[in-house]
Amino acid sequence: MRVKDLSRLCVHTITTRPLDIETAVEKYVSRGICGITVWRDAIENTGARKAGQLIRNNGLEIVSLCRGGFFPSADPALRKSAVDKNLEAIQEAHDLGAPMLVLVCGAEPGQSLTESRVQIRAGIEDILPRAAELGVRLAIEPLHPVYADTRSAINTMKQAVDMTDYFDSPWLGVAVDVYHVWWDEELEKQIMECGRDGRLFAFHICDWKVPTGDILNDRGLMGEGCIDIGKIRGWMKNSGFGGFDEVEIFSEKYWRYDQDEYLDMIINSYLEHAL
Amino acid sequence: MRVKDLSRLCVHTITTRPLDIETAVEKYVSRGICGITVWRDAIENTGARKAGQLIRNNGLEIVSLCRGGFFPSADPALRKSAVDKNLEAIQEAHDLGAPMLVLVCGAEPGQSLTESRVQIRAGIEDILPRAAELGVRLAIEPLHPVYADTRSAINTMKQAVDMTDYFDSPWLGVAVDVYHVWWDEELEKQIMECGRDGRLFAFHICDWKVPTGDILNDRGLMGEGCIDIGKIRGWMKNSGFGGFDEVEIFSEKYWRYDQDEYLDMIINSYLEHAL
Repeated sequence: MRVKDLSRLCVHTITTRPLDIETAVEKYVSRGICGITVWRDAIENTGARKAGQLIRNNGLEIVSLCRGGFFPSADPALRKSAVDKNLEAIQEAHDLGAPMLVLVCGAEPGQSLTESRVQIRAGIEDILPRAAELGVRLAIEPLHPVYADTRSAINTMKQAVDMTDYFDSPWLGVAVDVYHVWWDEELEKQIMECGRDGRLFAFHICDWKVPTGDILNDRGLMGEGCIDIGKIRGWMKNSGFGGFDEVEIFSEKYWRYDQDEYLDMIINSYLEHAL
Repeated sequence: MRVKDLSRLCVHTITTRPLDIETAVEKYVSRGICGITVWRDAIENTGARKAGQLIRNNGLEIVSLCRGGFFPSADPALRKSAVDKNLEAIQEAHDLGAPMLVLVCGAEPGQSLTESRVQIRAGIEDILPRAAELGVRLAIEPLHPVYADTRSAINTMKQAVDMTDYFDSPWLGVAVDVYHVWWDEELEKQIMECGRDGRLFAFHICDWKVPTGDILNDRGLMGEGCIDIGKIRGWMKNSGFGGFDEVEIFSEKYWRYDQDEYLDMIINSYLEHAL
């Protein structure tokens, strides 16, 4: 029988979106889940400090805060405002006690992706010193090219790695989400390079359903789709990554489920298809 | 005033799906459209020879037949059957008088994309001699990574170019569809390389709507989305491509339009946003 090892299992609050933060923490802990990644909307009412206290008091490890980013805009005033919002998010991560903030970098449909990447770089340049000061690591999450229109001009591991190379800072790294990068021929190579430089900061898992009904909110449980999660996880391990396996599933379908039942399914599919 | 140059404009029959082949030909010709790419379903009733005759009699140039491909399968018998179907498609292109068959190469969700590409290569190896014999060029169309689950394990220009490099045949090249490749940082470089070797066989245009409602059948008219079609067309020209600009739009929305009105919109958006 497989040993039930949940020591590296982390769940994103968005995965169980219907639960408030108190209930999520209680249900995660009671099942032996060891880590939590907090989405900002989940702690809006409670506040970062109080939420952090609650999570720690229950023995859960805070893996990261989701999310900052969305730097590009054709309007300089909006770019300035995006930087301000990111500085707030860094402060919130600090108040929460999260060691990391995930960045979904953004894209502006009216301009080229190259131009958007220049603006992303400028935005990171503006916030990185403050992140270092507060001890919050920034993790660039490359997004699948299907989101290149509005959500991210960083669509491959290579582009994320290039960005971290430019800054060469211990406070800037990459969040690898299997949903976004599974199709990439260069994935193993880029994970290895990124790991060699100590810049693999996070690992998100879910599955790509076949067919996918909605490109945003129809992600699958591990094993429900076409991604070889175990293989990618192996590459992460081989590259020296020792962090959590973070279950991040956006799913209108599963958000309608009884969340207790759903959490049991998450654990089973994690043990069966990710480890 | 812009000169109304439609000499390089081709429309795919699927773009005006509600029209039968006779009506499509008549409406294309009456507007000064010069080329047609025929989807196989459009000539099922008429037959390839008769359809070819009809098209030529009306002075339209047949640009290509869509489509062959879908080689991968875990089952060898199904792979063999896919090869047979592709040989039929090559024969049909020949009978129609189409100088080219477009290949959507396929993918099998239960196996790795690498394995699928090996099977694609084997499939092309099996059909290329017959294509050469009948004078039908095969154009590999890389598909957007959003279709990597079932439609194509060839998701970048680089992968398509690599495949043509492997065979190094004048009968195998690449069909560039802006919808599939617009996001790719390497696009210009790959178009240049592909053009240098004389392997740019086709150019398909439409637009990526923001937001896109349905990932399959919600493509936009040129100018309706975030793709800089003119820039990509410029790269094609600079690389020596002198073929048609083929309008290939899958759209539940536009298929419901009056197709006369829609064809006028296609021409206007082509003149305004593609040239």
